[in-house]
Amino acid sequence: MTDLIKPRDLDFLLYELLDVQALCEHAQFADHDRETFDAVLETARTLARDQFATHAAKLDANEPTFDGERVHLIPEVKQALDAYIEGGFLGTAFAPEHGGLGLPYTVSQACAALFTAANVGTAGYPFLTAAAANLLRIVGSADQQARYMAPMIEGRWFGTMCLSEPQAGSSLGDIKTKAKLRDDGRYEITGTKMWISGGEHDLSENIVHMVLAKIDSPDTPPGTKGISLFAVPKFRVGDDGSLGQRNGVKLAGLNHKMGYRGTVNTVLNFGEDEPCIGELIGPPNQGLKGMFHMMNEARIGVGMGAAAIGYAGYTASLDYAKHRPQGRPLTDRDPTSKPVAIVEHADVRRLLLAQKAAVEGGLALCLYCATLVDQLEAGIGNTDEHRQLLDILTPIAKSWPSEFCLEANKHAIQVLGGYGYTRDYPVERYYRDNRLNPIHEGTHGIQGLDLLGRKVLLENGAAFKLLVREVFHTAKIVMLDDALAAEARALTDALGHVGRVTKLLASELAAGRAERALANATLYLDTLGHVVIAWLWLKQAAIARPAMNHATDADRDFYAGKIAACRYFFRYELPKVPMNVALLERLDETTLRAEPASL
Amino acid sequence: MTDLIKPRDLDFLLYELLDVQALCEHAQFADHDRETFDAVLETARTLARDQFATHAAKLDANEPTFDGERVHLIPEVKQALDAYIEGGFLGTAFAPEHGGLGLPYTVSQACAALFTAANVGTAGYPFLTAAAANLLRIVGSADQQARYMAPMIEGRWFGTMCLSEPQAGSSLGDIKTKAKLRDDGRYEITGTKMWISGGEHDLSENIVHMVLAKIDSPDTPPGTKGISLFAVPKFRVGDDGSLGQRNGVKLAGLNHKMGYRGTVNTVLNFGEDEPCIGELIGPPNQGLKGMFHMMNEARIGVGMGAAAIGYAGYTASLDYAKHRPQGRPLTDRDPTSKPVAIVEHADVRRLLLAQKAAVEGGLALCLYCATLVDQLEAGIGNTDEHRQLLDILTPIAKSWPSEFCLEANKHAIQVLGGYGYTRDYPVERYYRDNRLNPIHEGTHGIQGLDLLGRKVLLENGAAFKLLVREVFHTAKIVMLDDALAAEARALTDALGHVGRVTKLLASELAAGRAERALANATLYLDTLGHVVIAWLWLKQAAIARPAMNHATDADRDFYAGKIAACRYFFRYELPKVPMNVALLERLDETTLRAEPASL
Repeated sequence: MTDLIKPRDLDFLLYELLDVQALCEHAQFADHDRETFDAVLETARTLARDQFATHAAKLDANEPTFDGERVHLIPEVKQALDAYIEGGFLGTAFAPEHGGLGLPYTVSQACAALFTAANVGTAGYPFLTAAAANLLRIVGSADQQARYMAPMIEGRWFGTMCLSEPQAGSSLGDIKTKAKLRDDGRYEITGTKMWISGGEHDLSENIVHMVLAKIDSPDTPPGTKGISLFAVPKFRVGDDGSLGQRNGVKLAGLNHKMGYRGTVNTVLNFGEDEPCIGELIGPPNQGLKGMFHMMNEARIGVGMGAAAIGYAGYTASLDYAKHRPQGRPLTDRDPTSKPVAIVEHADVRRLLLAQKAAVEGGLALCLYCATLVDQLEAGIGNTDEHRQLLDILTPIAKSWPSEFCLEANKHAIQVLGGYGYTRDYPVERYYRDNRLNPIHEGTHGIQGLDLLGRKVLLENGAAFKLLVREVFHTAKIVMLDDALAAEARALTDALGHVGRVTKLLASELAAGRAERALANATLYLDTLGHVVIAWLWLKQAAIARPAMNHATDADRDFYAGKIAACRYFFRYELPKVPMNVALLERLDETTLRAEPASL
Repeated sequence: MTDLIKPRDLDFLLYELLDVQALCEHAQFADHDRETFDAVLETARTLARDQFATHAAKLDANEPTFDGERVHLIPEVKQALDAYIEGGFLGTAFAPEHGGLGLPYTVSQACAALFTAANVGTAGYPFLTAAAANLLRIVGSADQQARYMAPMIEGRWFGTMCLSEPQAGSSLGDIKTKAKLRDDGRYEITGTKMWISGGEHDLSENIVHMVLAKIDSPDTPPGTKGISLFAVPKFRVGDDGSLGQRNGVKLAGLNHKMGYRGTVNTVLNFGEDEPCIGELIGPPNQGLKGMFHMMNEARIGVGMGAAAIGYAGYTASLDYAKHRPQGRPLTDRDPTSKPVAIVEHADVRRLLLAQKAAVEGGLALCLYCATLVDQLEAGIGNTDEHRQLLDILTPIAKSWPSEFCLEANKHAIQVLGGYGYTRDYPVERYYRDNRLNPIHEGTHGIQGLDLLGRKVLLENGAAFKLLVREVFHTAKIVMLDDALAAEARALTDALGHVGRVTKLLASELAAGRAERALANATLYLDTLGHVVIAWLWLKQAAIARPAMNHATDADRDFYAGKIAACRYFFRYELPKVPMNVALLERLDETTLRAEPASL
């Protein structure tokens, strides 16, 4: 079986581009070295290939069912997850004192990419569990961590995130779920949550729902400022951690999606027939604080997932293109000559280069953000700067791969033609799966508002200025290499365009003209995203150029591919930056002014 | 139920933009007038809504099955098709002497759009049948027309197109199906055909397969010049048209697709166990000629289908956006205020305008091409010019909606958010269905080669020059209206860019540098497509401007929407033209030079 994510490329990104092994020089990661990273990645790769990828198509075709009592999943899911837990993957990024392996978040995210590429449906359960455990790590008391987090890292209990409600998806301030204080200090939860992945199943002994609700009190402020966070277990938990009776959280129904079919997606009722007891996590009315911390990592995780699914489509279509004979070169007019592999056709190469540029670029961005998380949490280097870069890059890391690696999945189908459109090949599944990523964890549009309406302005634009400095610094150095000087210049030009329009939009915002300034925030997000991806491609090409001189044949091909994809991105994609900036600079109001009745 | 395609818009396109009623002034359509057109369209709309749309989701969820003997379909398909046949829709565009209604092809295509928007799976069967009948109309003898075509137009028999084989999809010259002359003048057919829609079912008394095969003779030239066309019925047909014994064409298996699930898609074996008898249609080795004539209409039909599916997504998401409350205006910071309908958010309007511009633009293009077919076939006006315009516009009409109305379907899901990603709403189905259109009837890449490598060069560039003149003529007139002068200028600028690069690419081709000239043919196709769609939007806006002055309130909103969508397209989409032209002018070889080993 072809590797879904090229091992050579993952090595390149981790060790040549991001220098992840350098993290081991610092106290927090001193127990590790490149060898342990490689061993974990190799185990993940094997597990993903042998236990996850093997049932991905079957799980997609046989989505979870609900018989009114229980949720049924094909048995391969539990087998795969048992092996995953056995391998310690639930705790890769948790500290040893929490029962984890204490690996850098970056390495843990690289593993996540491997599992996602193999089978996003099965991978969803432990990913959600790790996210819930991480939330408890951030805002839970030591007691709560012992009670809820430890069994999750052990893999005995699974977790969920319960944010959305039928009437409140993007607007969390409008949630209606209520929490009423009981005499014992716990809360009774009532309400309905929607889109809850992993909300009900028999994969684990217990499920811990992390639930946003509003405390039923006159002191609770309206909107997002009145949201609190609760741990609501499926089975009640004694102080000693023992499992008690069933809690009043019930499955109301399953959502049936276009993709991501393997991860059961539920509507949950809290406290409908029986009392549902929850425990307040963190201070009252501060529920979104910890959630946002967790959500930032979740957003990088979404981008990583989008890049991974895009990558799986890229390698599948590349493999097909190299082995499918059809057609002849344009210069060959002899109909009796042997057909060539379709990878020889220029348009097929375009479809492959477009995918490569998107998926390797997207993966680079998400792994880079993961290194910022590591450096920030371990206090390495200038943590203020890491935080600022992470702030401004998070909406891009979430959105850019979600948009452009989905486009890559579209191209993968095109390479396979009619075959790609059938369920006999995985590329149509990737295309369906990846369509979720621009929607969940904050839609594409919301990321645009977050970037332009918040992140760009924070601390008087400090994060944006820092990003510009970083990009400019790379371009300045690469300019010295004649072979990449044109690309370096194009990047500084693009940076100039974006800098100019950012200043303009910031001044509009400062002047209180938010509607007009933010009308095209999504376009701004895509545009700054293109600059960031171009930057990461230039960095990759700049590493590849000298490395080619002393490389083996296979490595020379690999590096040549990096340079080709960089050139592709600069020639086919980067020109969108000045084009979009021209529109943004006009403060275009076409969308604002279009009356609903005229649409 | 919301109309899937707005009746007011279809009226506008047919009567205000394309002046279809003027066709009735000519002999061929003298029996008709706008009233008969309207009556047919209204019947189609009712039928599509009450009999087609009603089981579209059910058919998608319950795709045809094969029990080894027979293909099973949900009963609603036959019920709907019986009503369709009863309504005379199989023969809308056929002449009365052939049993048809003798309506313009344009009106027939407008009906097709309505049925496709409602249920592409069920609509597939009669569409294929009409295409097969049309092929017989073009190349069949009177005797063959009586035997095979007449029962198809009556709806008693259905038809298929058997072109592709497992090893030969885009490269028809490589087909292996053989036809061996028998003593009785008929042929014995042996081989395997792939991707055959409607290849087996019990919906009709007989199925007539139109099969491409090579005559088993030393005189048969290699490649496409040795392809002949045969009619191969499922049940043999006596000279008097009576049904005889089962012919040796057998269902080998079903293909399971991501979308278009309702139209059974088959692998057919010819002459495997029992002899399969076929009848030569047209002269030997001339099989592609008639097929190409038919295929041109089929390609316009693909574009029409893509626009129709895109349109259904647009109206569904517009309806949702007007009724789903969520979030507040950016200027409203009171969390207790009532949420607004999401259509009030600028980014949602952007997603709606992008859809509107794509689907109404794509529909306009396909209907315009259909009027050219009508004028050409009825000998109205300058038929040389109609043929030239049709030649150059066909690859665009096939491809532009397939690419950009699929993008529209992506936006429709985004408007609905998580709900749009579920199978409870139709937009995810549209997205899956529409993904086929850039693949079948000649892939996007092949259309690019057809346009730039053939159509643009034909008759010393006559068709391209004519198209430029037409577009320029519109722009020149519209320039006089101050409110649209900026758009008119932008269009002439874009036209100048495309004209320049076309000259360059043509000279490269003339100099024998085909590989380099055609390396970015797909991009050229998209670019010229954008100019054509901009042209049709400018025409629409130019009609809407004065019409607003005397319009009812509802019509004023309608016309305002046309102007808004025109502006949207010119501001957000047309700037891609100079961007792409810059790349094309550089004769970029990035894709040509990328070595497969480096990908």
